[in-house]
Amino acid sequence: MPVNLPLPDVATLFPIAGVRIGVTEAGVRKVGRKDLTVVLLDEGASVSGVFTSNRFCAAPVQLCREHLASGQSMRAMLINTGNANAGTGADGLARAQSTCVALAGKLGIAAQQVLPFSTGVIMEPLPIDRIEAGLDAAIADARLDNWLKAAEGIMTTDTQPKAYGAQITMGGKQISVSGISKGAGMIRPNMATMLGFIATDACVSQAVMHELSLALAEGSFNRVTVDGDTSTNDSLVVIASNKAGNPEITSLQSTDGQALKAAMLGVARQLAQAIVRDGEGATKFITVQVEGGRTAEECRKVAYAIAHSPLVKTAFYASDPNLGRILAAVGYAGIDDLDQTGIELYLDDVYVATRGGRNPGYREEDGQRVMKQSEITVRVGLGRGAATETVWTCDFSHEYVTINADYRS
Amino acid sequence: MPVNLPLPDVATLFPIAGVRIGVTEAGVRKVGRKDLTVVLLDEGASVSGVFTSNRFCAAPVQLCREHLASGQSMRAMLINTGNANAGTGADGLARAQSTCVALAGKLGIAAQQVLPFSTGVIMEPLPIDRIEAGLDAAIADARLDNWLKAAEGIMTTDTQPKAYGAQITMGGKQISVSGISKGAGMIRPNMATMLGFIATDACVSQAVMHELSLALAEGSFNRVTVDGDTSTNDSLVVIASNKAGNPEITSLQSTDGQALKAAMLGVARQLAQAIVRDGEGATKFITVQVEGGRTAEECRKVAYAIAHSPLVKTAFYASDPNLGRILAAVGYAGIDDLDQTGIELYLDDVYVATRGGRNPGYREEDGQRVMKQSEITVRVGLGRGAATETVWTCDFSHEYVTINADYRS
Repeated sequence: MPVNLPLPDVATLFPIAGVRIGVTEAGVRKVGRKDLTVVLLDEGASVSGVFTSNRFCAAPVQLCREHLASGQSMRAMLINTGNANAGTGADGLARAQSTCVALAGKLGIAAQQVLPFSTGVIMEPLPIDRIEAGLDAAIADARLDNWLKAAEGIMTTDTQPKAYGAQITMGGKQISVSGISKGAGMIRPNMATMLGFIATDACVSQAVMHELSLALAEGSFNRVTVDGDTSTNDSLVVIASNKAGNPEITSLQSTDGQALKAAMLGVARQLAQAIVRDGEGATKFITVQVEGGRTAEECRKVAYAIAHSPLVKTAFYASDPNLGRILAAVGYAGIDDLDQTGIELYLDDVYVATRGGRNPGYREEDGQRVMKQSEITVRVGLGRGAATETVWTCDFSHEYVTINADYRS
Repeated sequence: MPVNLPLPDVATLFPIAGVRIGVTEAGVRKVGRKDLTVVLLDEGASVSGVFTSNRFCAAPVQLCREHLASGQSMRAMLINTGNANAGTGADGLARAQSTCVALAGKLGIAAQQVLPFSTGVIMEPLPIDRIEAGLDAAIADARLDNWLKAAEGIMTTDTQPKAYGAQITMGGKQISVSGISKGAGMIRPNMATMLGFIATDACVSQAVMHELSLALAEGSFNRVTVDGDTSTNDSLVVIASNKAGNPEITSLQSTDGQALKAAMLGVARQLAQAIVRDGEGATKFITVQVEGGRTAEECRKVAYAIAHSPLVKTAFYASDPNLGRILAAVGYAGIDDLDQTGIELYLDDVYVATRGGRNPGYREEDGQRVMKQSEITVRVGLGRGAATETVWTCDFSHEYVTINADYRS
């Protein structure tokens, strides 16, 4: 059961002119499930991507990087579930390449104009025959209003599709943003077993797309964690189809640039938080906010130490205000000169610890009350500077173990 | 059920001349359990300690560091379970100090000659009345052959006491080593919610004790992990009572120094591995061996990434050879220039991955066979140097969640 995660509201999933999506059942790993998605882009779209920091990155990630660096314009994306095509060596690269060639042939474009994405089990050969056999059906299904179906088509252990949209007005023109994501385990900053696709019809110069995709990743997908495992396949792709007729955005610092970035970041953050809300076995959604650091980096270290601690996460699961575990995580986060007497800890509005010790006014029943909620904010003050960072995570339950002990069976 | 962990063999727990141990039930947190231990040292013992790297270190750890740095000779240790006296601020320091003063008063020594240790729940005030009321009984119980009772007296979530010994001959003199440890969760290098005490009757110069205790920690307790949480209270204390009559060891590089270090390291490693074998919810004992690194540090990074991955640990629990999860952990371990095509992976004798892809000769049933064992060695080759490191860990089970969701109740 995801934590406070409503099903996508189709009324807010806006068609993006120039971006058509088709989904089919190719039987990649199991029959009878949507597992193959194509995204077809009209000529002239601006596209950029951010990919996993995992050095063991999957074959499709390697190809995406190559294709985006080629200087060619991107015209299609090909996404399969059921198989991650990671840990597959040279053969895996050849297989990913083969699927790009096959799709490019059917569309009359170059293979380098296709971005491939795979998610699922690692270290098994990609079944290219089944994928290539499914291409015609996926292409035939391509429509502007297929965002929800695409969100379903990229799910793996997700229990719900994840899709959000937004609209803004810019210079008299209506601008739409729609996005989908998937991911539920192997989720950690930089980025997650996570796929995210966010498209807008706004006119955006290719020159600012890299900065835009980085900003969206940093403000959303790079701030969520479920289990601390960074996947081999994480990919966030940002598309501007350049159809809306607004004056082209050539700087993110411009008024229009800031407005578009804010709208897209809102969608990206919802998509990223949805992954945590649907985290494997999650029963609670936890916001970890670290303030008073000297640098943003040390705030992130502390926030992730808390967000990754199995002891903290099981305490949340148990609704047990065993808050010393949070302080212990602060202590081992890796700030070598941290002075524990400067540490403050709040649980929502409850003031738990001060100067590194229990706040005299703290009462266990207040901590208990907050711990029972399904949404909890942990706020840590480091007392050594002005930097602040926020990450989002979930608790750690029996169900997590069950899901991951059974994933392949 | 601990993994292949026999009960201590009392025949190998040797009395250490000059080291008497007494244990009592002080009712620190719960009644009817041994929870207060004193270790009384004759004059003239050499003593050193290694303590947690957690910046949120507990009050007793702060006092241990102070007392050891004071230049005074150590004469007693005072160990309580049920309460960690961590996250307790200035009041916690005063309470720890009070227990040292109380014990010192009864023994006619200075408070600085007492080393205090606490383990248990964090952020609750240490019940000094109960501890101080128990001192007389603990002192009255002091005997040379109480090692097993002490191992029981320092247990928290441990399911079994942990105690080992060794004997060697040196210059015609028999040298004995005995040690105890506790810890089962919040276990991670540097060090663990772990207490370890290792004593020998050998004559060892105080000048080499620091080097000796560091060497023992690095080769044992700093190489085990259960859940990646570094505790606030980890302490390893090494004692040489200087009673055996051997020529004093003034260098660990001497023949005698090496022999003693090897014997004590053997005991330390058994004590540390016992903590993993008794890890909370553990059903398997995993050795992670990383070879071919440029530096020992990068080998450790990779070993710990594997040993801490909830996905890897749940796969071991499930006996599922989902070995891509291990490769993924290698990839995100933080070696920025790692070339995945140099990676090799073995599971015991089974050659799983080569050049970053599946070994063509690997068969799933071979991986399955090894995964079903209760003891498994994961061996990763990085193919970029000659450094090697080994860490020990356990799997991640439903029982871990149950234990840690219920710990305080």
